[in-house]
Amino acid sequence: MTAPLAKSSLTPDQQLRFGLIGYGYWGPLLLRNLARQDNSSVALLADVTEPRLAEAQRNNPGLRVTSRVDDMFEESDIDAIVIATPLSTHFELAQQALLSGKHVLVEKPLTDSSAQARELIALAERQGRILMVGHTYEYSPEVERLRQIVQNGDLGKIFYINSSRLNLGIFRKDADVIWDLAPHDVSMINFVLDKRPVAVSARGSTCVHKDLIDVAYIDLRYPGGDEAHVHVSWLNPNKERRFTIVGDRRMAVYDDTAGNEKIKIFDRGVDRPNYSTTFGEFQLSYRYGEIVIPFVAGAEPLAVECQHFAQAVRSGQKPRSHGEVGLNVVKALEAAHESIDKGGVYIPISW
Amino acid sequence: MTAPLAKSSLTPDQQLRFGLIGYGYWGPLLLRNLARQDNSSVALLADVTEPRLAEAQRNNPGLRVTSRVDDMFEESDIDAIVIATPLSTHFELAQQALLSGKHVLVEKPLTDSSAQARELIALAERQGRILMVGHTYEYSPEVERLRQIVQNGDLGKIFYINSSRLNLGIFRKDADVIWDLAPHDVSMINFVLDKRPVAVSARGSTCVHKDLIDVAYIDLRYPGGDEAHVHVSWLNPNKERRFTIVGDRRMAVYDDTAGNEKIKIFDRGVDRPNYSTTFGEFQLSYRYGEIVIPFVAGAEPLAVECQHFAQAVRSGQKPRSHGEVGLNVVKALEAAHESIDKGGVYIPISW
Amino acid sequence: MTAPLAKSSLTPDQQLRFGLIGYGYWGPLLLRNLARQDNSSVALLADVTEPRLAEAQRNNPGLRVTSRVDDMFEESDIDAIVIATPLSTHFELAQQALLSGKHVLVEKPLTDSSAQARELIALAERQGRILMVGHTYEYSPEVERLRQIVQNGDLGKIFYINSSRLNLGIFRKDADVIWDLAPHDVSMINFVLDKRPVAVSARGSTCVHKDLIDVAYIDLRYPGGDEAHVHVSWLNPNKERRFTIVGDRRMAVYDDTAGNEKIKIFDRGVDRPNYSTTFGEFQLSYRYGEIVIPFVAGAEPLAVECQHFAQAVRSGQKPRSHGEVGLNVVKALEAAHESIDKGGVYIPISW
Amino acid sequence: MTAPLAKSSLTPDQQLRFGLIGYGYWGPLLLRNLARQDNSSVALLADVTEPRLAEAQRNNPGLRVTSRVDDMFEESDIDAIVIATPLSTHFELAQQALLSGKHVLVEKPLTDSSAQARELIALAERQGRILMVGHTYEYSPEVERLRQIVQNGDLGKIFYINSSRLNLGIFRKDADVIWDLAPHDVSMINFVLDKRPVAVSARGSTCVHKDLIDVAYIDLRYPGGDEAHVHVSWLNPNKERRFTIVGDRRMAVYDDTAGNEKIKIFDRGVDRPNYSTTFGEFQLSYRYGEIVIPFVAGAEPLAVECQHFAQAVRSGQKPRSHGEVGLNVVKALEAAHESIDKGGVYIPISW
Repeated sequence: MTAPLAKSSLTPDQQLRFGLIGYGYWGPLLLRNLARQDNSSVALLADVTEPRLAEAQRNNPGLRVTSRVDDMFEESDIDAIVIATPLSTHFELAQQALLSGKHVLVEKPLTDSSAQARELIALAERQGRILMVGHTYEYSPEVERLRQIVQNGDLGKIFYINSSRLNLGIFRKDADVIWDLAPHDVSMINFVLDKRPVAVSARGSTCVHKDLIDVAYIDLRYPGGDEAHVHVSWLNPNKERRFTIVGDRRMAVYDDTAGNEKIKIFDRGVDRPNYSTTFGEFQLSYRYGEIVIPFVAGAEPLAVECQHFAQAVRSGQKPRSHGEVGLNVVKALEAAHESIDKGGVYIPISW
Repeated sequence: MTAPLAKSSLTPDQQLRFGLIGYGYWGPLLLRNLARQDNSSVALLADVTEPRLAEAQRNNPGLRVTSRVDDMFEESDIDAIVIATPLSTHFELAQQALLSGKHVLVEKPLTDSSAQARELIALAERQGRILMVGHTYEYSPEVERLRQIVQNGDLGKIFYINSSRLNLGIFRKDADVIWDLAPHDVSMINFVLDKRPVAVSARGSTCVHKDLIDVAYIDLRYPGGDEAHVHVSWLNPNKERRFTIVGDRRMAVYDDTAGNEKIKIFDRGVDRPNYSTTFGEFQLSYRYGEIVIPFVAGAEPLAVECQHFAQAVRSGQKPRSHGEVGLNVVKALEAAHESIDKGGVYIPISW
Repeated sequence: MTAPLAKSSLTPDQQLRFGLIGYGYWGPLLLRNLARQDNSSVALLADVTEPRLAEAQRNNPGLRVTSRVDDMFEESDIDAIVIATPLSTHFELAQQALLSGKHVLVEKPLTDSSAQARELIALAERQGRILMVGHTYEYSPEVERLRQIVQNGDLGKIFYINSSRLNLGIFRKDADVIWDLAPHDVSMINFVLDKRPVAVSARGSTCVHKDLIDVAYIDLRYPGGDEAHVHVSWLNPNKERRFTIVGDRRMAVYDDTAGNEKIKIFDRGVDRPNYSTTFGEFQLSYRYGEIVIPFVAGAEPLAVECQHFAQAVRSGQKPRSHGEVGLNVVKALEAAHESIDKGGVYIPISW
Repeated sequence: MTAPLAKSSLTPDQQLRFGLIGYGYWGPLLLRNLARQDNSSVALLADVTEPRLAEAQRNNPGLRVTSRVDDMFEESDIDAIVIATPLSTHFELAQQALLSGKHVLVEKPLTDSSAQARELIALAERQGRILMVGHTYEYSPEVERLRQIVQNGDLGKIFYINSSRLNLGIFRKDADVIWDLAPHDVSMINFVLDKRPVAVSARGSTCVHKDLIDVAYIDLRYPGGDEAHVHVSWLNPNKERRFTIVGDRRMAVYDDTAGNEKIKIFDRGVDRPNYSTTFGEFQLSYRYGEIVIPFVAGAEPLAVECQHFAQAVRSGQKPRSHGEVGLNVVKALEAAHESIDKGGVYIPISW
């Protein structure tokens, strides 16, 4: 469908050699998922912290490591670099990786400014290399199912989406709760609606540390009148991951903490009379029907994401969560911060 | 403690005679709870709809009814009038009741404008009559327990409260979802914090009918930096009634749908180091402790409310949810609507 | 379908006059549901305890009461008597009622011995009067749905039913936990399977009081190899009402405490290969499919039961939970006690 | 406390070399947990299935494997052998391992007959070697907590324990559901009560395959009047792991599927009057108090078990789940099968 983005240098049976930068929270998970693919290997791991490198080697005997990140860019037989470092370093590392001719997968969010995100996209295009962002939820079977039932009209016209991502911690130094958690919600909403927001309003609180937002409420407007509301918090007693889609025909709830019953589709709605009526007399009736919990075959989203990246590198095809997808998220979060600074007003986003 | 507000005309063993206006959703519940008190009776029920009066008589053989509301005000031996009618009629009916010398309990919200609420408060004072608002949750044993643990410092400094009140329906013609559902949340938050908000921001959606907000998000700021967030919706597949209080020592969740386990107190929090530190190095540690589900002896809030009203009438003491308490809620909801009209900015409230 | 059992003495628009004996736990509920029917009234309430009669009159102004039960039988214009008294009195009261020409609804279980149950059935037949047992769950919309999906084959061949009825209390003096709680489970199982058990095994414990079984496990065998297992307890920290039906095509769970999601139908099962295989190599595969929570329109089972009784009295048609249905339950519980006395062996039931 | 059972041949800093037999369900989990300990390594893996050995090497580069189990016994520098093979092979493999001078950890249940279990215990003693059974739940922090609160009297006198272990599958060829699942429950109950059963009754069904019990109910009597009831099933739509302990002071529920709220302690019970009373008048009152969900620091039971085994081997101290502990479980399950064969009667167990 889409023309190949990058010239592929690999046949399916050639070995794909990854480099990984960063062995913090995501690093070990990425290392495992990159390494277990067919015809693939992790050729080098870089991290600035020696104890992390030692830990990595303990768990992965024989793994080559370095504390000098430039080794990664200089190594000619590394095909693709995966960047799992603090947000503030994403831009420079991804830039260097692309300049050294590598394909790049960056952890979400792509960058902390849309200007830099745009620069990376342009650079990847010039270099003929893949630029992908680790929006893991776009590779989750449940989120794919939600997109499917929204796009095929099962839920009818979408009124709104409400997404809560709450738990106690993990506080980060490099990013507030909006940059930390909301990329998941915004990428999921954009993906499920197949749209990008046109205006964003937000409010944030700095409860524990006076310089760092740890609780936030974000409202997004989409073309066609769809709305979305995101609530993220590092300060909630319980873990909550609830994503509600309200349509005029059906409603769906995706609760990521609900074991084998993550998605529930409610055959419920509000029926308006089909004759014209004045406001004073309007009549609405509620429809209560059955609830279906579809069977969704399990798959680890990070494993699917890593396979998708490998396939994009081999085929040269633009990956699902390519650079522009990452930019869309960055622009929304940037606007959320601007709205907070301006007292909560809606900030329009131009595309 | 507080001086008697109204001259009491009743000794404890004298019969208290109520009039009830309105037999819609709340009417039958109020009728039952008013009638079952000692030394009390419902002397007259008024409603403009004949079939409702017939229904009332079927369920309450011998009940006197009228479709002419003025009968209520003219009847000299009715002591107190309970108003459970559409919001737009609250002001005029309460005014007439007070002018005719009756004590008044008005369903929440008190009025749909703060100017009218203030007028009723002044009138009640002049007339020496009780003016009470039916903020039922202030009479719930669970909410009292929450107020207690907040006020005695069990939760530490309060960071924020988050309150969700979601379900499918009931759409009303006389009020949007903010006037319909949010009075509960705002009165609970004011009551638990023992404060009133100083600024309000809100966003509302009109999903089903273009002139009526059916989904809304309201943010409230309180003196001392406490914040609160309210999410109300008539368009949610599940009923949700969740009230989360996050303090720096403990956190509490009140889930009104959780049977016998409505309140959970989490001994969880974030500890900051007690030495001074720069931002770049700050360290936070999470504390996970036990969860306690306190035993709260059940009581029907509406029964407690009706007893409280009767006692206020007999004693002349200001009731818990007196007119100013109702005004505080009305001002917050008025500000919420103003914020929506102004694109979501915070509207300061002066007291 | 079935020939009229009793000569009906009432046209649909004639007043049906009930007498009620017993105002303990079930009495007030029955009184309310009997009285609210069209063309019906409760003409007399009898109870041996004066304070209970006083309480009844407080809640039901104008109700005629008596502490002399014979008044009930002597009153010629009472058509039907509802008996809600301790188990040990069921037989004698029902016998007197039938002998005095009244139709009878007896609370479950019908009697505490099958001999007496049989005697009542024969007497009702001779007298041409309705004898019905208050097996309330047979009038629950959820249980009717379960019967429907079992009888129409939706679940395939039934392997087994497991029913738990656990809570803290209520201890009774007149009956152990088997006579108190298990009539619900056994009547539901018989009704859903449309069978009656052929053998019963049971084990019971006497935890709190040495003479009274308060925890019991009952196993029932049905024709065709269906099995059922009942666990009843007065000593469980949580209320549990779970009824699981396992079929070879689908499985269903009915959780009576689960709000609006009481029935879940699981499209899950075990597939056997359709070629012959020796045991050593047998292969089974699990089938995981969607879960459906059907919409079941709510109805109060006791209201349906009372209507059903009234209709049976008017029409003379045998009611759903007629005397033999009650006898089937009594025989199973009698066998359970015999099994406990004999160390847990299966006691065959002959029909 | 207890005298060393076996002569220890290892100082703490000497390498402990494990052999593992069997790479089915438990094998990979054991391999990972054995290998990650300090000063330990898995020197050899044996399995009769070549593809399993290949899989093991793919996931563990450099692992030595063999399809000839005798290699394991002949290798002089293997200190301890872990046996994770089908039940029918446990006895012979453990016997050979002990005879070749190795310490042995056998997966649960120890053997399928008590005679063989006794033989292994005697052999281990003669050889001066550790014999441990993999009763994993005895190494779970939650089960340890339960044992603690039972043993220190927090729950008062124990009335009964009820344990359910239900799910769909996994059907095994080598063992019925009693041998497959009930070892968990019986070992937990024995461990928590610190007792072993004196009589067992059971009933089992063969739903899917006519020769293999797939649903079973087991009742156990303990000294002092404690009772326990176990329900195991391979044919239940939902996974259920619920362990309820009912005491006369408090009750506890351990739900292994309940995320971070696995243990709930209910301050509930039944109070008997402390004056003497005849049966006819006995009065019981229910006590409802708070519910506490204690914080239990997480630990992977299998990791704790593997550490415990390593420590036992090094120290020569009898491990917690030593051979007799395994024998106690085997005798109970043997008696359960005998009871099923004899129609459900209680089978006494002599110790």
